[in-house]
Amino acid sequence: MLAGAAVRALGAVDEVRRPADPQAAWLTYSSVDAHHVFPVGTSVPDTMLMLGVSEIEASARDELQLGLRLMLHRVLRVAASADSLQANDVLVVGTEEEIAEWKPSLKIAKPLGPEGFRLRRVVAGKKTWLIVEGADERGVLYGAFALLRLIAEERSLAGLNVVEAPSAPVRWTNEWDNPDGSIERGYAGRSIFFDQGAVRGDISRIAGYARLLASVGINGCTINNVNADAKLLQAENLREIARVSAIFRTYGVRLSLAIDMSSPQSIGGLTTFDPLAPEVVAWWKEKIDEIYSVIPNFGGVVIKADSEGRPGPSQYGRTPAEAANVLARALKPHGGVVLYRGFVYNHHLDWKDAKADRARAGYDNFHELDGKFDDNVIVQIKHGPIDFQVREPGSPLFAGLQKTNEAIELQITQEYTGQQRHLVYLVPMWKEALDTDMRASAKTPSRVQDIVTGKTFGQAGGGFVGVANVGLDDYWLGHPLALANLYGFGRLAWDPALTSATIVDEWTRLTFGNDPQVRSVIDSMQLNSWHIYEEYTGPLGAGTLTDIIGIHYGPGIESSERNGWGQWHRADQDGVGMDRTVATGTGYIGQYPAALAAKYESLKTCPDELLLFMHHVPYDYRLHSGKTVIQHIYDTHYAGAAAAAAQVGAWESLEDKIPERTYFEVLRRLRYQAGHAVVWRDAVAEWFHETSGVDDHLERVDKHPNRIEAEAMELTGYAPVAVMPWETASEGRAVVCKGLGGCSASSTFARPDGWYDVAVQYFDLRNGASRFTLQVNGTAIDEWTADDVLPSDKMDGHTATRHVVSGVALHKGDTIRVIGAPEGEEPAPLDYLEITSSSASRPVRARVAAR
Amino acid sequence: MLAGAAVRALGAVDEVRRPADPQAAWLTYSSVDAHHVFPVGTSVPDTMLMLGVSEIEASARDELQLGLRLMLHRVLRVAASADSLQANDVLVVGTEEEIAEWKPSLKIAKPLGPEGFRLRRVVAGKKTWLIVEGADERGVLYGAFALLRLIAEERSLAGLNVVEAPSAPVRWTNEWDNPDGSIERGYAGRSIFFDQGAVRGDISRIAGYARLLASVGINGCTINNVNADAKLLQAENLREIARVSAIFRTYGVRLSLAIDMSSPQSIGGLTTFDPLAPEVVAWWKEKIDEIYSVIPNFGGVVIKADSEGRPGPSQYGRTPAEAANVLARALKPHGGVVLYRGFVYNHHLDWKDAKADRARAGYDNFHELDGKFDDNVIVQIKHGPIDFQVREPGSPLFAGLQKTNEAIELQITQEYTGQQRHLVYLVPMWKEALDTDMRASAKTPSRVQDIVTGKTFGQAGGGFVGVANVGLDDYWLGHPLALANLYGFGRLAWDPALTSATIVDEWTRLTFGNDPQVRSVIDSMQLNSWHIYEEYTGPLGAGTLTDIIGIHYGPGIESSERNGWGQWHRADQDGVGMDRTVATGTGYIGQYPAALAAKYESLKTCPDELLLFMHHVPYDYRLHSGKTVIQHIYDTHYAGAAAAAAQVGAWESLEDKIPERTYFEVLRRLRYQAGHAVVWRDAVAEWFHETSGVDDHLERVDKHPNRIEAEAMELTGYAPVAVMPWETASEGRAVVCKGLGGCSASSTFARPDGWYDVAVQYFDLRNGASRFTLQVNGTAIDEWTADDVLPSDKMDGHTATRHVVSGVALHKGDTIRVIGAPEGEEPAPLDYLEITSSSASRPVRARVAAR
Repeated sequence: MLAGAAVRALGAVDEVRRPADPQAAWLTYSSVDAHHVFPVGTSVPDTMLMLGVSEIEASARDELQLGLRLMLHRVLRVAASADSLQANDVLVVGTEEEIAEWKPSLKIAKPLGPEGFRLRRVVAGKKTWLIVEGADERGVLYGAFALLRLIAEERSLAGLNVVEAPSAPVRWTNEWDNPDGSIERGYAGRSIFFDQGAVRGDISRIAGYARLLASVGINGCTINNVNADAKLLQAENLREIARVSAIFRTYGVRLSLAIDMSSPQSIGGLTTFDPLAPEVVAWWKEKIDEIYSVIPNFGGVVIKADSEGRPGPSQYGRTPAEAANVLARALKPHGGVVLYRGFVYNHHLDWKDAKADRARAGYDNFHELDGKFDDNVIVQIKHGPIDFQVREPGSPLFAGLQKTNEAIELQITQEYTGQQRHLVYLVPMWKEALDTDMRASAKTPSRVQDIVTGKTFGQAGGGFVGVANVGLDDYWLGHPLALANLYGFGRLAWDPALTSATIVDEWTRLTFGNDPQVRSVIDSMQLNSWHIYEEYTGPLGAGTLTDIIGIHYGPGIESSERNGWGQWHRADQDGVGMDRTVATGTGYIGQYPAALAAKYESLKTCPDELLLFMHHVPYDYRLHSGKTVIQHIYDTHYAGAAAAAAQVGAWESLEDKIPERTYFEVLRRLRYQAGHAVVWRDAVAEWFHETSGVDDHLERVDKHPNRIEAEAMELTGYAPVAVMPWETASEGRAVVCKGLGGCSASSTFARPDGWYDVAVQYFDLRNGASRFTLQVNGTAIDEWTADDVLPSDKMDGHTATRHVVSGVALHKGDTIRVIGAPEGEEPAPLDYLEITSSSASRPVRARVAAR
Repeated sequence: MLAGAAVRALGAVDEVRRPADPQAAWLTYSSVDAHHVFPVGTSVPDTMLMLGVSEIEASARDELQLGLRLMLHRVLRVAASADSLQANDVLVVGTEEEIAEWKPSLKIAKPLGPEGFRLRRVVAGKKTWLIVEGADERGVLYGAFALLRLIAEERSLAGLNVVEAPSAPVRWTNEWDNPDGSIERGYAGRSIFFDQGAVRGDISRIAGYARLLASVGINGCTINNVNADAKLLQAENLREIARVSAIFRTYGVRLSLAIDMSSPQSIGGLTTFDPLAPEVVAWWKEKIDEIYSVIPNFGGVVIKADSEGRPGPSQYGRTPAEAANVLARALKPHGGVVLYRGFVYNHHLDWKDAKADRARAGYDNFHELDGKFDDNVIVQIKHGPIDFQVREPGSPLFAGLQKTNEAIELQITQEYTGQQRHLVYLVPMWKEALDTDMRASAKTPSRVQDIVTGKTFGQAGGGFVGVANVGLDDYWLGHPLALANLYGFGRLAWDPALTSATIVDEWTRLTFGNDPQVRSVIDSMQLNSWHIYEEYTGPLGAGTLTDIIGIHYGPGIESSERNGWGQWHRADQDGVGMDRTVATGTGYIGQYPAALAAKYESLKTCPDELLLFMHHVPYDYRLHSGKTVIQHIYDTHYAGAAAAAAQVGAWESLEDKIPERTYFEVLRRLRYQAGHAVVWRDAVAEWFHETSGVDDHLERVDKHPNRIEAEAMELTGYAPVAVMPWETASEGRAVVCKGLGGCSASSTFARPDGWYDVAVQYFDLRNGASRFTLQVNGTAIDEWTADDVLPSDKMDGHTATRHVVSGVALHKGDTIRVIGAPEGEEPAPLDYLEITSSSASRPVRARVAAR
């Protein structure tokens, strides 16, 4: 039998052949030019010899059959056995051991690393063998996917000889899925695993996800929220979770669970959950044994404790190491591991205390425990010391643990980076952390990637954890282009030395094919996207400047300050930035090894992009670039918003080359992003202008000659209101319609006759779908509904939205009117119109010229 | 206010901008190169001046705004009034009268024909006027659509000067929709008008349909089945129908109804429906007055009477003319018309009577009534004398009525031509009829198109009726490419002199854009398609050879014979064809004017393609082509099936250029058609081989060296059964699975090693979804579900289906197995395997080369 997913795919060839089929994501297997792959004189094997019979090797066989069929339009015959093999051209698939047994002459002395593979083509007389050889079953599957990737990229297999092995044993995703089917910080629909308190009845998406994970070498997946629901460990729930694990198993993915440290009390009926109490130790041992009795390939547990209100060992005066080791000893006989999260901090810091610093917490809490963790415990450390901001330095804790296994936690779901509504390719950001040299050892390389893979300190039990939060959305992560982040996480975990450009180009080719224009445009869009997002959000390491105490999405500059959460940027009328120096600040910099600490401590050597993370400076402080800090803030925000707008045009140049549904899905999001980038630009620039009192040298900030404020228009029914925070509405005000029948705002056009673009800025609240009509001289020229589901039901930086009507003929004296019809609890809120000379004719010609 | 459809479209610009958006069909309005349309020095107007204010002119305005916005990305300003006009470049829209009043200098002496339009560009000093001028409101709307078509085709408007008017006043579609929502001979889902006995609650599709009709100049639509339900004339139903009419009205489409002649009795409560009884005359007058009171723009009535069991005036000894005139007099004061269908025949003919001939019926029933119909009666005549077969001569009745208005009835829904599962572009077939010279007048041209447009006999009240039967299907007619038939009907009704090639190229450009490769491939596919279908179905005018007494779809050669329906082809062991000569046959040919009759009567001059319609000949009769009739039958059926297969490859060459959903929807249908063409080929060729006893010179018929009959395979669970009619299964037999757990059929491959295509021939019944798996040596290489909804629940020519697995590696000695798992009432019926050398690598290279 074929495994479930492959059978479905084979049975529905037309579905899968579509480029960018959402279920298959980058495994689209489009037609390729067989002559590139098998040049003249190199034959396509017509038979597959499977040397092994395991479930995972069967998945390798199915993937090879499917991929070759869809890409080369060939269905290989599967040889019944090695003995009966007569064919001359054979694709041979098996483990090192199986291959050596079949043909001892093919054995290679140097063994493959664990989970590694070797791909080679061997010509022996009339016989040609294309060999996929794995160190083990997983290696076979990873080798199969690697071969398919080479074919998809139309790379010649004539002289094939590739040997690879993964960088580290832990290559997991975490999914923050709750049993009710919601996903904490998930932006792509509901859980593929859970619904209404139990495992979802329809588990059809799980096999598709397991394929995706395996295809990039991910070997573990934690399927529930780190803020864990203890009930999942109850027997009836474990039986359901075993169904998920059975699917994962065929793709070599080990299922794991996040656990609640208080479980022995909350579901076990004990009077304590003190990890060192004998009855608690016994309870955990029994529970872990029970888990393995129903989930034989269980991977282990993830623990978030003593953080953000979660129960933990500190309640009993125990250390994280003591707690972790109890679990580790219960798991050890079964081969399981403990991932203990280093994300432990106090969220009731005193914001008036200049020495208080949340960034210190990880190192302060874990450094002294180094050496106290068992060897199957891994401390899971977020890549930066705060919480996935748009720019952070690498966490000093990486160098702070030298006798402990470590895993770097990267966040694939874009919590602080646009929530998959903004295009942000995160691999370059992750690479900044992975490539940071901690200067922790004189003898061995000590980049973060060297530390987590055990090269620096020899602690080789760790690796990579990515918080993915995929959902039922057809594109898994909402934004079709965001899948490059899941792909990139897997590829970096396999080989952190890969470049951002290499990874994104692989993804683009596997998803959209090998067309040079498509590759060039999408690769550039992705590679520029993080920088663009950083430009219009938080500058110079000050944090994302989003609404930090709520939903982490739109601008909310002051939300960071004057609370205990510690994500402070300390901006006031004189200057901005957290002083984390040893000399005058919180001393955080002192947590780094001396050479790196010296670099950050000195204003001379601290990189501009981390300046406000490390130092507090006045607004007129000059960067290495020569600009003042305040002018840098203004300039980058205008540059970022302009670059976000240019991404729309770049994508439009591919109109004929991208599958229709995906093209429009991405276009819709890019247009939205371009509008929201203006909201960000204005909010940040005007807040700093107001706070600093320093004018923009280029006279852009707070000056909008093309703008007509709604509150200054002739209003019928509409009434002005103040918006909070003030910087998220132009002039801090908007108008709302309280009448049932609709309202209108009018203005007389007073500029020269011509073609114009008319942008209508409004608020699209979650709880309602107002209808807007734009009229010129009483004729409707556009209508639209404000029915997006943005994450707020207020007028604020999350809901501020822009709709642009391009190429409108306007004459001096024309009446421009916006009619708003409220719906639900949304009063058709209107902020302003912005009318600019039209660029509408340009894309038409560009599109034609590009053909 | 914009009209409904246009508002929706404007509000959802992204939706509409998609090429081939199904709701908009050919009105896709993709981006065009503005420099082609308005070359350098020719400016785009920036203002629209609407001289009229009628509903229909408002639709013209909305369409122009929408189209210019989507194609040129420009939103024109609508001038408040002519007085306030300041712009220099203006799009002026109005009737002849309105334009003459606005600028008397622009008046042109020769008036436009009714519903006609003039498009011109006038430069006067600084002012430039692009003028859309209609003879009347409809003319304005048609002119607007014509201008949009020119822009969509990127034709320069620099020297614009176009004058057009429609060929005839009647340009209607008939929809055979029943009040319960079903559609007789509809192949595209349920009715857009009716559901569960009443007008559909959601009438959103109706405006879209009215747009489509108006865009090609169709001005009337009969919304209910000609086999009419009398209840629709009841007051409560008329009020509902008025809602439909109100939508139609804004696009200048007049609603009409098919009526049941027995209504005065069945719903009126009278004791008779004798059309001449005074109380019946009074009842009809009152009913028609009532209709106009709620539907002021009602177009008139369509009558099918005394045909196929419908009640009619013959019951009281009255003629069709007497019946029609009663209705005509009631309609006359309101401007309504009567379309009386000439499709009156006896379906209880004596098949043993060599003189009996259904083809005679139309002429025999109506010829003598010429001159007896009122001037607002139109006799509606099917294009051929039988019933929309794949090949018929023009009906002799066209020349048989010289003092009567006539309309030609063309069938857009593909009842006998593949039911929108087969690609058949019907315009060339219709052109054969329209271009047939009846030789009816020495003084005037007397082609059928001249007769129905009044040029021959001066009866100019008629025109064109197309049986459309659109449904809720997203593509309106099911097959996305079938929409070219609806478009073509409208264009021919407007101007029957247009060529098939011109019409299809317009349609392709409006639907898929101006890419030369797309135009060339799709135009060719469409233009070849009727001929291909004719080749693999009914030869030489013998009729479609389908199941004539049932669903008119798959092959059923003998169903025509030995019954009273009169669609006989008279094939026996000696010869084939209906002898309709005057000399020895039914005398039908004598109904044509003498010159044309002489041509058909003589074997020397009768065209080959109509031979078997006119004559009975032996199988060894030699055609003008030099081939015998029987060899022609064999050759055309093999050629047709091969050409149907080639259509798949042609379409695949456009994979990158067609919107994804449409590409796969068409591909799926073309692949199915290629398989069904083989079913047709074998059924017809083998039936004639069996009947005639004459062998195929090329030794193809009944010889299938690559075929493995299911009943000859090693069967587990499967049992052989006979299939009826025998010619629809290979060797007349198949196997069925009666067990619940599934069955299998196996065979050992005995041919040389190589790459092969494996075709699995099975039956896909309506009431079930069996699952098939194809295995080689125990490994599944494909799985699929027989879940198509074909129009039969038996194994026969309607359900015979082929699934091809391409590029399979097979070695001598391999075991090939089909596993069938029944579902519902479908026993996974299997006919045969056909294994041929693979051509799978070809399309891959072709696709790459075409880039």
